[in-house]
Amino acid sequence: MQRALSVTRADFPEWYQAVVREADMAETSPVRGAMVIKPWGYGVWELIQAELDRRIKATGHENCYFPLFIPMSFLAKEASHVEGFAKEMAVVTHHRLKTVDGQLVVDPDAKLEEPLIVRPTSETIIGDAFSRWVRSYRDLPLLINQWANVVRWEMRTRLFLRTSEFLWQEGHTAHASAEEARDETLKMLEVYRAFAEDVLAMPVIAGEKPENERFPGAVNTYSIEAMMQDGKALQAGTSHYLGTGFAEAQNIRFQTDKGDWAFAHTTSWGVSTRLIGGVIMTHGDDDGLRLPPAIAPRQVVVVPMLRDKPEDAEVLAYCESLVRELGDQTAFGQPVRALLDRKPIRSAEKRWNWVRKGAPIIVEIGPRDAAGGQVTFMRRDVLRDGDRVRSQTASRAEFVEGVRGHLAEIQASLYEEAKTRLEANIVDHIADFAALADYFGAPSEEGDDAFKGWARVAWSRPAGAALEAVDERLKALKLTIRNTPAVQPQAALGPCVFTGQPAVETILVARAY
Amino acid sequence: MQRALSVTRADFPEWYQAVVREADMAETSPVRGAMVIKPWGYGVWELIQAELDRRIKATGHENCYFPLFIPMSFLAKEASHVEGFAKEMAVVTHHRLKTVDGQLVVDPDAKLEEPLIVRPTSETIIGDAFSRWVRSYRDLPLLINQWANVVRWEMRTRLFLRTSEFLWQEGHTAHASAEEARDETLKMLEVYRAFAEDVLAMPVIAGEKPENERFPGAVNTYSIEAMMQDGKALQAGTSHYLGTGFAEAQNIRFQTDKGDWAFAHTTSWGVSTRLIGGVIMTHGDDDGLRLPPAIAPRQVVVVPMLRDKPEDAEVLAYCESLVRELGDQTAFGQPVRALLDRKPIRSAEKRWNWVRKGAPIIVEIGPRDAAGGQVTFMRRDVLRDGDRVRSQTASRAEFVEGVRGHLAEIQASLYEEAKTRLEANIVDHIADFAALADYFGAPSEEGDDAFKGWARVAWSRPAGAALEAVDERLKALKLTIRNTPAVQPQAALGPCVFTGQPAVETILVARAY
Repeated sequence: MQRALSVTRADFPEWYQAVVREADMAETSPVRGAMVIKPWGYGVWELIQAELDRRIKATGHENCYFPLFIPMSFLAKEASHVEGFAKEMAVVTHHRLKTVDGQLVVDPDAKLEEPLIVRPTSETIIGDAFSRWVRSYRDLPLLINQWANVVRWEMRTRLFLRTSEFLWQEGHTAHASAEEARDETLKMLEVYRAFAEDVLAMPVIAGEKPENERFPGAVNTYSIEAMMQDGKALQAGTSHYLGTGFAEAQNIRFQTDKGDWAFAHTTSWGVSTRLIGGVIMTHGDDDGLRLPPAIAPRQVVVVPMLRDKPEDAEVLAYCESLVRELGDQTAFGQPVRALLDRKPIRSAEKRWNWVRKGAPIIVEIGPRDAAGGQVTFMRRDVLRDGDRVRSQTASRAEFVEGVRGHLAEIQASLYEEAKTRLEANIVDHIADFAALADYFGAPSEEGDDAFKGWARVAWSRPAGAALEAVDERLKALKLTIRNTPAVQPQAALGPCVFTGQPAVETILVARAY
Repeated sequence: MQRALSVTRADFPEWYQAVVREADMAETSPVRGAMVIKPWGYGVWELIQAELDRRIKATGHENCYFPLFIPMSFLAKEASHVEGFAKEMAVVTHHRLKTVDGQLVVDPDAKLEEPLIVRPTSETIIGDAFSRWVRSYRDLPLLINQWANVVRWEMRTRLFLRTSEFLWQEGHTAHASAEEARDETLKMLEVYRAFAEDVLAMPVIAGEKPENERFPGAVNTYSIEAMMQDGKALQAGTSHYLGTGFAEAQNIRFQTDKGDWAFAHTTSWGVSTRLIGGVIMTHGDDDGLRLPPAIAPRQVVVVPMLRDKPEDAEVLAYCESLVRELGDQTAFGQPVRALLDRKPIRSAEKRWNWVRKGAPIIVEIGPRDAAGGQVTFMRRDVLRDGDRVRSQTASRAEFVEGVRGHLAEIQASLYEEAKTRLEANIVDHIADFAALADYFGAPSEEGDDAFKGWARVAWSRPAGAALEAVDERLKALKLTIRNTPAVQPQAALGPCVFTGQPAVETILVARAY
């Protein structure tokens, strides 16, 4: 069977790279580890931003912008933060270049007194602002969000999934009480869950991270975890309750309504361009990307079948008015995003380009469609019937009126397909560590292991050194604890698979990105 | 008379700082030269972004994202670019920190082989991508825009106007012919002009920069120039035709429809958060900021006059339903942005906060308004009648139906006021350099000179050394050439005020930011 890609998901890492490239989402750049996000990929990000921003604002947050650079001394303020955070960061040490003998060099006379760090995350610089903004309980809660680029020097990078520079949003809030701050942490986790499932059509499991996977300095870290088509987990968003640790280090104090002084309870939470990698690995197939209509920059692409003949004009005019009519329809509360593809290339090539890019509906209009007032189209979610491409025909009016329904169906079907896969691939029969090791098997050198999905296992929630020991045993199998799902089974738990002691909850164990 | 600010425009630099602070737009940060943009300021930027982005896309451009870091060698590729560009840039030299004796330090073992520059502008890194993307005339025109942060190390900074880090959009395009690229350059200049005038209510004069003020490496640079209330000019946007110089340095080549190879003609154009500084200095008054409704994060703010009495509940309910009704109205093609200010502070304090922040319409609702079904409101553009605050009353239905008209009137009146000032303050009677020097007078030490506006003078368009000489003479008076307005007078020109030779056009001369 002829496919639109030259590789299949059987070689998942190769397939992922091929989709990113062939769908024209992004490319590597000459700057190590940094990517160029191309129009189709950035269009997806813009739609993610717009809808998530709407939800972040609807929950009472306001956007700000804080400096890109953080004085090195700021990072040292919160001891467990600096201790835990990977120290691979971009460091600005000079502020001037100069030309010497026609060569551009760093001017040694322009050394900064204190090195500046390109923000890997902004808790410290935003906390500094909070310490000025918070004086009284009347100033709380302080609910701030920022859309920004951040940099974490990465040795092994993969487009969208792990890049030295990436785009994200980071929410930062301060509250008068622990309870309010915990509520906020969980509220934003729920915003992420609903966004991932409703907008990205990407089912996730929300839960709390074990203590060894907490954000450095956090009291609790929560995540949403999505299952990729190779069975690995992708952490798709995190939300942290930071207690008063950051507030104490940064002096975020307020006068209570009783007149005494207290430290604020803070939270932070973020999602990034990594979500786009998650969308690709959740929905892509062997013909390329499939985009959920809610985040497709073009939801309907109309390809005119031109033959350099007189009837071309009629075909084009038909397509133009069709695109206009589609644009007057709405889907997901917005005008339908329809495009007439006028590129001067063969129409078959256009079709396959849009298949690879994952446009939800691809319309092909030839002279017969134009003359007969009909529309021939493909739905990207059900592209094939066996080996053949599945093309449908409808009257023009029927198609235009039905487009909103088709888009809603595609959104739902992508979600259902992924949800079924997620649910079918979490095993919960594993009783002890030997069975766990046996189930996942020894990891291969390349880490390209056969699909195994996730295991949900009972554990006794060991802490400290005991947890470290568990972690080491899992690491040898290239496994990690993903989270403790918020929704726990009703049934009685067996003993902990790691310690044999009475279990207190179940956790998800998986290989992960 | 009691004013909402403690300083007036008579001390313009102090006044500017006070407005930025009192309107809660932005503040300085502990990182030298970088600012924190606060919710009200960032809200203005979001509205600027949304509307300008719409216009940039409507003219066929697509958004991308390119790396923050630029390898130092890239900057050296285009000789006149690197020669002309200020070399005050942030330089990343290391990629790791480490802890030594409990102290965080830069790890000397993590020195980069090649220093990375934090982008001061992206021609070089985007040109590198273009060299991969452009192969054939079919790939042209390539019309790309980016919203990003950029860094230029500045010694003397002023919030919004000149900061080390700022936010902007930078358009970058490649074309098959010089004519197309020139058309693009002027088209985007016109997009900026229309945006500044229609959306920011900030009248500007569009024209070409003299050769000594061109973007380094550009063939032509165009700008829009706005007049601030101290008479100085603010360059509010630029558009550059870059010829084939960047394409040659970066090998952006394409095969023409005849089969031979040619270098692309490129352009670039940008506006930044500096626009917000322009809005403040164009529209602010001695009571603070006045925001054009099109970019006001809140267009109507409703302040309930609460007295800790039983009728408070009725007042609040009335205000809530009023805000809902206002939100159902549209202005400038979008739902009216109305807010009920529930902060637990005195209502008089709220009123003056919103006056300082420049909310276009401030509504005050007391028990009598609620009982009588009426609305008492102030329009920020006509806040005072002599010394008294000018408050109007209307029936609730009348006010709600009229809100769109009020907002349109405020937008128009702010524009008209600024337009009148601009037109009244460009002198065109200056015949020679002595008269020019006499008109502007010697600059004071602080540069806080009395309002003089701009001069429109005839010149012979000297080039090279002759232009340098003119520039030196102007510099001594702290004057600069702003641009050669696109619209030139019909009347015959006298001799050049600088050279005495026959003039070929008129130029604008002014003190400037």
